[in-house]
Amino acid sequence: MRAALMYAAGDVRVEDVPDPGIQQPTDAVVRVVRSCICGSDLWPYGSMPAAEHGVRMGHEFLGVVEDTGPDVSGLARGDLVLAPFVWSDNTCDFCRAGLQTSCRHGGPWGRDGVDGGQGEAVRVPQAQGTLVKLPVAEDSALLPSLLTLSDVFCTGHHAAVTAGVGPRTTVTVVGDGAVGLSAVLAARRQGAERIILMGRHRERTDLGRDFGATDVVPERGEEGVARVRELTGGDGTHAVLECVGTLPALRTALGVIRAGGSVSRVGAPQYDDAPMGFDEFMRNITLTGGVAPARAYIEELLPDVLEGRIDPGRVFDRTMGVDEVPDGYRAMADRESLKVLIAP
Amino acid sequence: MRAALMYAAGDVRVEDVPDPGIQQPTDAVVRVVRSCICGSDLWPYGSMPAAEHGVRMGHEFLGVVEDTGPDVSGLARGDLVLAPFVWSDNTCDFCRAGLQTSCRHGGPWGRDGVDGGQGEAVRVPQAQGTLVKLPVAEDSALLPSLLTLSDVFCTGHHAAVTAGVGPRTTVTVVGDGAVGLSAVLAARRQGAERIILMGRHRERTDLGRDFGATDVVPERGEEGVARVRELTGGDGTHAVLECVGTLPALRTALGVIRAGGSVSRVGAPQYDDAPMGFDEFMRNITLTGGVAPARAYIEELLPDVLEGRIDPGRVFDRTMGVDEVPDGYRAMADRESLKVLIAP
Repeated sequence: MRAALMYAAGDVRVEDVPDPGIQQPTDAVVRVVRSCICGSDLWPYGSMPAAEHGVRMGHEFLGVVEDTGPDVSGLARGDLVLAPFVWSDNTCDFCRAGLQTSCRHGGPWGRDGVDGGQGEAVRVPQAQGTLVKLPVAEDSALLPSLLTLSDVFCTGHHAAVTAGVGPRTTVTVVGDGAVGLSAVLAARRQGAERIILMGRHRERTDLGRDFGATDVVPERGEEGVARVRELTGGDGTHAVLECVGTLPALRTALGVIRAGGSVSRVGAPQYDDAPMGFDEFMRNITLTGGVAPARAYIEELLPDVLEGRIDPGRVFDRTMGVDEVPDGYRAMADRESLKVLIAP
Repeated sequence: MRAALMYAAGDVRVEDVPDPGIQQPTDAVVRVVRSCICGSDLWPYGSMPAAEHGVRMGHEFLGVVEDTGPDVSGLARGDLVLAPFVWSDNTCDFCRAGLQTSCRHGGPWGRDGVDGGQGEAVRVPQAQGTLVKLPVAEDSALLPSLLTLSDVFCTGHHAAVTAGVGPRTTVTVVGDGAVGLSAVLAARRQGAERIILMGRHRERTDLGRDFGATDVVPERGEEGVARVRELTGGDGTHAVLECVGTLPALRTALGVIRAGGSVSRVGAPQYDDAPMGFDEFMRNITLTGGVAPARAYIEELLPDVLEGRIDPGRVFDRTMGVDEVPDGYRAMADRESLKVLIAP
């Protein structure tokens, strides 16, 4: 089958790789129907040192079950299923606590002999715990929105949930990428009425307004902080959802958080130390968030997608085949595309 | 009257200062019956640059109302009252949200013409919002425990509350100072059954055991982290209450926190940046806590002290008069005393 591998910064190739098969009794094999490229894939795309063997890419996909191991129950050949962006047994103590990203028997896609999602098929470890059946057909118009439950919308939701967003909280979202826009939608879904989106790409912030942003602040850095404070009577907002992952973005987040508030970060940190010093202590600022345990949220969010109350799939603005994946990376890195959907 | 002033690191003096009087209609004057020295007073005691004019010290006291301004209701001459360690109107939006440390009309003791608690009397701004009446007499044996509601026990309680400590959480407390021991007692009060106290001063950790610590780890740094992990099956604890404020203590806290857990810091940070990088992100670690809004907690904690269910005043191991305050600082800095009670 065909699958995408990254060999170095800027060097993604699509190659023939072995077809996946059942290796463990807990495995399933899934033929990929939709996958996509994640903003977090752009970090190695910008910085990965050259490697002799490519790394399999992709951690968001949905597809059709082709085979299951003998220990997998509840799934059958032909089922349309969604995979969250880590695989997990969904039974260990961490999973039961809703932290499937720390599953005792789980792990990431594309490492240690596990396939990536940017390919034609995937061997799914811990399939019974990992996969969620989707009650729609393979040609459903809902597939893009359903696919966002793999990662990007759940990530925005994780930001909103961990920051305690609710009807009485004001919210700032830092970043107008696909995660930031998802965070806007998630904050709106949690009942927030005031949502300030910090971003300067007009077509993205327009989608942010559709998703529920009430204010857009295109200024960055100190100027952006000043603008959000001005919009909030000098106080900042109760919650800030930091959806970028850089230190300047975190500084902005800490600059616009209200005393007693929570900054939730869901962009993978490109820094080692967070500027949480004496001032943040005196203001009782909480730094929370982290990698989103998407598996914990899918059942809750699925009905909203199936019944059309939310349409998070609007973050996809381009669709490509597997062989075009390298161009998809380029398009996202060049900001030509917000998020690329892959239809193998 | 006599009051303590700090002029430089290691230089605390007791001097005659003007008697306080009503200046604003919202003021009260309180004759101090008990005050104390805080662990946080030891930071300037260790590092304050020499100053021409001394700084009034002390932010924990209880005493008897001697006079009230015309806008103060609910308080009368002769009432025994407790002051939390910042003054606040207790009516603004921050106060109503339980964050009196960010009160829009509040401030710290000992600054900008406001008296400190380490003296014979105090002018209390925003007296109606700040002071809490105590239903005991001036000679009650409960005074030491009641005084801890000014700051130290409420600080331990704040750590436990913000870290989400409850019956199902395991807890590590970093630090065996008065705040750390208070945090042990607070965690026990919140229902925690497993409380690991990291500290190496035997007489202090013995009090920690009395307060509810189930394990004591005297090792520090990496050795201490390894020991706590060993005690918890490799995972660390759900909550860590960081009661020191130094970077090594925070590193220890982050080393023993379980994935998905919360580190609450209540020791004033002696660092600008917290090591909350990629690993903490992948493990979904929350950094929370901050300066404790003691005023928010007093009503809840008071009955437990009055009815003898908790005895947080056991952190005081020495009592001195006002004129002995400089020796009290020395004794605490030299670790001869855990916490000094002042009886003017």
